[in-house]
Amino acid sequence: MKHEPVYYGEYLKLDQILNAQQLKSKQHGEEAHDETLFIIIHQTYELWFKQIIHEVDSIYKLLNTDKVKPTSLGTVNHRLNRVVEIQRILVDQLGIMETMTPLDFMDFRDYLVPASGFQSIQFRTVEVKLGLRQKYRLGIDKKYFNSRLSEKDKQFLIELEEKPTLLELLDSWLARMPFAKQEGYNFWEEYKIATTNMLDNDQKIIEANTTLGPQEREFELRNLQSTRLNFESLFNPEKHKELMDQGKVRLSMDSIRAAIFIRLFRDEPIFQIPNRMLDLLTDIDEQFTNWRDRHAIMVHRMLGTKIGTGGSSGHEYLKNSSDNNRVFTDLFNLATFLIPRSHVPKLPEQIRAELGFVFE
Amino acid sequence: MKHEPVYYGEYLKLDQILNAQQLKSKQHGEEAHDETLFIIIHQTYELWFKQIIHEVDSIYKLLNTDKVKPTSLGTVNHRLNRVVEIQRILVDQLGIMETMTPLDFMDFRDYLVPASGFQSIQFRTVEVKLGLRQKYRLGIDKKYFNSRLSEKDKQFLIELEEKPTLLELLDSWLARMPFAKQEGYNFWEEYKIATTNMLDNDQKIIEANTTLGPQEREFELRNLQSTRLNFESLFNPEKHKELMDQGKVRLSMDSIRAAIFIRLFRDEPIFQIPNRMLDLLTDIDEQFTNWRDRHAIMVHRMLGTKIGTGGSSGHEYLKNSSDNNRVFTDLFNLATFLIPRSHVPKLPEQIRAELGFVFE
Amino acid sequence: MKHEPVYYGEYLKLDQILNAQQLKSKQHGEEAHDETLFIIIHQTYELWFKQIIHEVDSIYKLLNTDKVKPTSLGTVNHRLNRVVEIQRILVDQLGIMETMTPLDFMDFRDYLVPASGFQSIQFRTVEVKLGLRQKYRLGIDKKYFNSRLSEKDKQFLIELEEKPTLLELLDSWLARMPFAKQEGYNFWEEYKIATTNMLDNDQKIIEANTTLGPQEREFELRNLQSTRLNFESLFNPEKHKELMDQGKVRLSMDSIRAAIFIRLFRDEPIFQIPNRMLDLLTDIDEQFTNWRDRHAIMVHRMLGTKIGTGGSSGHEYLKNSSDNNRVFTDLFNLATFLIPRSHVPKLPEQIRAELGFVFE
Amino acid sequence: MKHEPVYYGEYLKLDQILNAQQLKSKQHGEEAHDETLFIIIHQTYELWFKQIIHEVDSIYKLLNTDKVKPTSLGTVNHRLNRVVEIQRILVDQLGIMETMTPLDFMDFRDYLVPASGFQSIQFRTVEVKLGLRQKYRLGIDKKYFNSRLSEKDKQFLIELEEKPTLLELLDSWLARMPFAKQEGYNFWEEYKIATTNMLDNDQKIIEANTTLGPQEREFELRNLQSTRLNFESLFNPEKHKELMDQGKVRLSMDSIRAAIFIRLFRDEPIFQIPNRMLDLLTDIDEQFTNWRDRHAIMVHRMLGTKIGTGGSSGHEYLKNSSDNNRVFTDLFNLATFLIPRSHVPKLPEQIRAELGFVFE
Repeated sequence: MKHEPVYYGEYLKLDQILNAQQLKSKQHGEEAHDETLFIIIHQTYELWFKQIIHEVDSIYKLLNTDKVKPTSLGTVNHRLNRVVEIQRILVDQLGIMETMTPLDFMDFRDYLVPASGFQSIQFRTVEVKLGLRQKYRLGIDKKYFNSRLSEKDKQFLIELEEKPTLLELLDSWLARMPFAKQEGYNFWEEYKIATTNMLDNDQKIIEANTTLGPQEREFELRNLQSTRLNFESLFNPEKHKELMDQGKVRLSMDSIRAAIFIRLFRDEPIFQIPNRMLDLLTDIDEQFTNWRDRHAIMVHRMLGTKIGTGGSSGHEYLKNSSDNNRVFTDLFNLATFLIPRSHVPKLPEQIRAELGFVFE
Repeated sequence: MKHEPVYYGEYLKLDQILNAQQLKSKQHGEEAHDETLFIIIHQTYELWFKQIIHEVDSIYKLLNTDKVKPTSLGTVNHRLNRVVEIQRILVDQLGIMETMTPLDFMDFRDYLVPASGFQSIQFRTVEVKLGLRQKYRLGIDKKYFNSRLSEKDKQFLIELEEKPTLLELLDSWLARMPFAKQEGYNFWEEYKIATTNMLDNDQKIIEANTTLGPQEREFELRNLQSTRLNFESLFNPEKHKELMDQGKVRLSMDSIRAAIFIRLFRDEPIFQIPNRMLDLLTDIDEQFTNWRDRHAIMVHRMLGTKIGTGGSSGHEYLKNSSDNNRVFTDLFNLATFLIPRSHVPKLPEQIRAELGFVFE
Repeated sequence: MKHEPVYYGEYLKLDQILNAQQLKSKQHGEEAHDETLFIIIHQTYELWFKQIIHEVDSIYKLLNTDKVKPTSLGTVNHRLNRVVEIQRILVDQLGIMETMTPLDFMDFRDYLVPASGFQSIQFRTVEVKLGLRQKYRLGIDKKYFNSRLSEKDKQFLIELEEKPTLLELLDSWLARMPFAKQEGYNFWEEYKIATTNMLDNDQKIIEANTTLGPQEREFELRNLQSTRLNFESLFNPEKHKELMDQGKVRLSMDSIRAAIFIRLFRDEPIFQIPNRMLDLLTDIDEQFTNWRDRHAIMVHRMLGTKIGTGGSSGHEYLKNSSDNNRVFTDLFNLATFLIPRSHVPKLPEQIRAELGFVFE
Repeated sequence: MKHEPVYYGEYLKLDQILNAQQLKSKQHGEEAHDETLFIIIHQTYELWFKQIIHEVDSIYKLLNTDKVKPTSLGTVNHRLNRVVEIQRILVDQLGIMETMTPLDFMDFRDYLVPASGFQSIQFRTVEVKLGLRQKYRLGIDKKYFNSRLSEKDKQFLIELEEKPTLLELLDSWLARMPFAKQEGYNFWEEYKIATTNMLDNDQKIIEANTTLGPQEREFELRNLQSTRLNFESLFNPEKHKELMDQGKVRLSMDSIRAAIFIRLFRDEPIFQIPNRMLDLLTDIDEQFTNWRDRHAIMVHRMLGTKIGTGGSSGHEYLKNSSDNNRVFTDLFNLATFLIPRSHVPKLPEQIRAELGFVFE
């Protein structure tokens, strides 16, 4: 051995970890049995948040460059996947919290006023680093962001907003993707023709279908029209800008196109890893949404229609913020722009060759 | 052996089960690899729905009487718990569905029009049997209920609405609970005094607290006022009726009181089983909500902003119905009416004696 | 507010918790990215172990008496169930650990020698408190118990062995159960007759069955004989003592009988809660077994056939200890002694009356 | 619409699926409530087995060639991952089965004799297709394989043994991998030197360490010696053959080397996908092991020490087969042969270039 012998409990600083549960109920009166659970589960959440930040920071470093190394991509995916595995536990862990009944919670709840989960700086940090900037938050969410935090914590978060987010790094990386447009070839012109043909054809079928009643025909045609409008934002920069201004889209038009291109040609060797990266980022957004939804219903169970210890309006608010606080919605919406494989324009051989490498 | 020897595959009718996957893609053109998954996962859902109905029906029989047998309650809980275990799987199973990408789905999606998950009669049956009557559904939900089903299926569901629901059986059973009101004693009068005292005291503290700014004081007082209003519905039959008419409450005032009484005195031997029954019914509602939430986001991932194969508006609709279609919201809201154990009026000895039995 | 305002991060002592990750790799050379994960996941395990000990201690207090209060049983079950929920997470959390590859582990593994999970005093504590006394451990397990621990830790565990275990408290409580034997009535005499009749009848059927070949008949008769031997230990104290001396049984004959009685008459109001207690203790044993099995395979994946950092022989050892270190095996084995409900002797009315209470 | 309208229930053949639960208890006497669960859960297992076979067959087709297309690898991984997601559910689903108590099982158990899970042809098929050939099975397992099946089923499985297994296809594919050996360069010679140096150095350190007692020194040296022996099988074809003959290794020496090479250079673009393939195959093996372990303990709970309906010896047997029936043990054992990244020989530039492609 080349170093001092290591002892399990010292290495893990268990003295520090296992003595960090100071019950307010004990301090003010009789020990409330469940306060220990309440503290410990929050501490495990914070430990996992630290781990998620550790992973996100490392991914961030690999992507925060004008030239992402191809050897980095596997690492990025590996760590994104770890984040997803951690999130699975964060969601399932709520089941432990739910073994605390409202009556048991009331044994110590009043002692905690006005502390609130809103004050978890690490959770905020994860949100911001992924891409949930102030401007995207709901009003009430912004308000808490501003009013419930210590000066130091507020300052920390304000500085965090200075840096690019993971969403923005993804945006830059995708926008740089070559392939689709090359001299003498523009995939998107062909894609526009393919989608227009497909939709025109669908329209003819609907109009010729004599088994449809007038209401049904109108319904079908309306659907078709709405699909046409969706596709417009893919080919028309102004339409895309409009959606961006409305906050409905966050990725640039070039990035969305690149992401669609990856989705369509995911089997090409060069896209297999980027395709999985898109999957994993979608997973991360989905898992946080699961967490928010389950957290909202857990709070309902615990408090009924009461407000939270920090004065938050509880269940209703949490439910609303669940859908609003998603970061990678654009990746979910990619499905809107896909067409059946049989209708996708074939790539020129020269481009396909660039997308491959050989190990048979 | 007293019977013909049984063979695994025959007992399980595997010929029937494993030959029930007829791919539309194969029928109309080229086999789409993922259509098998799509069919099989839906079939497992339907098998589990059948099992849930089997359990709910058996619970229903045990509770659908003027005198529930004490020996039945353990069975009721045991089977409610089984439903919850099944629901855990129904939720987690969505993870398998999500391994189907939008592009793969498009290989066969068009062939399925206009079929839709809305047409799952068993899922509707579970909803109705638990207590989600037509009148509680969202408009669009009602519409689909009426328009997308075969005559036979529609008729089946209409007849189902004739029978009492599990929520209603629970309502009757709770309303019959004795104990709280006996000659010369009314727990609820004491509870009203206790809660009023508690709230008055809180008010004095807020008003006397010189560290609060005027805004904060006003905020605290507003909260207090809202809590007072909540409690009113517990003591004032007209206020309760009002909430019922607005659809905000579904259980009778007597039932809600009985449920609160059980929650407060859950440790008394006679209430340990009923208390767990309330927990399990809450779990069931929560799990279906989890399922709806996760289903909504899965659909978003699969379709983006497209509409569903049955013409449903997809993600947005599903998200809204998740909160609306809950059945046992009143059980979640019980937390509203609980007060710290130290403030709960003590029960007269004579009543406590009735709540106990001895096996030390 | 009646106390100093509470701030989330201070309440949870996050300074202490989030600064307890000191990387050995950083100390000795280059930071290994995955060492943070390695530390954090172990810290969450230790936090959960603390919570489990908190629950087990509180259950322990409720049961460590000559007269267990009927009002305590609901609490016991509630907290046992919480332990099970925590265990589910402990098992699933291994999935996070498995995102660390062997190659990444090797970046810091050597720095940790000779620390080892064997040195987790809290894990040992849980084992011992549940009932895994020194005498039940495998040889190698005992050896590590003695040699790898600091003097202080060793002393702590030695003292722990002085106190009764949860298994032993359960044993006393079950053994005190009345009901089965009362003046003029002994259930077990009737049960012996019922089981003997059933087995005699089975034997006649086998012997009369002309469709069985000689080998099959012999096989069936051998099975029957083995079942007879099993039942013997239930009626014959010497046979039971023999099994106890061999370490195959840990509960007394009276306790096993009481547990069977509870299982057979679980629907009687007085047994519904004790029956669930038996279920939950079985669950706890099962979950620890799941954890040990999954941990063993995870270690195989991480180390291959290498030995652990503490010099333990890894996968092979862990696999063996999984089955050996179970505590409530007797509860699993109860199934051996059950007979179909239709064959169970009816209880005299007078006894049944004692088992009930009324809330219809 | 270009086809007949599709109706949910017809598409899924629900008539067929939902009428395939024929209770033996009902046929022979009184309906046993839990027999429905017993049938339905087995049917969902069989549906999922069908899906797993569907995926394995498709992967099989992509790999069963002398030249695996690079565009296939993403598909292979995607589908392996789906199998893992299904397996997670197969494991967790056992929790539903466990809501059936031994007493409830006894209400219909005797009617099922001599049917047995051993007769699940699909489960056998999955095992064989992955690589669990007859020759690798335990004696008792072989016996059941031969004696409990209908002629038709037996014949089916015998024919299955004629075809290469997934393990064998993997073996061929890995063995074909170029890169490590090229004109003028042999990575394995350098690796042998690196590992030998590392081990020699370790030995010197141990021998020079004056703080070690004689027993400890001997122990450390023995460990080192055992590591040396492990490495020998990597460099010495005869040693490898010896292990193969003992059934301890199933992959060829070339394949194991290729797998190690992938593990060591997993960040190179060309290896990112193959590296994940190795992970996923390991996951699949691990999940089946989890399933077997949890199944064994579930059976213990249900039957105690009784034998199974098919006469199998139950828990003991199942526990033993869990470790024996693993298929990809060699992938777990890869960890044995890895050395810290800092000691791994650098690859010549010319080879590294072949491993990369550019999309920065």
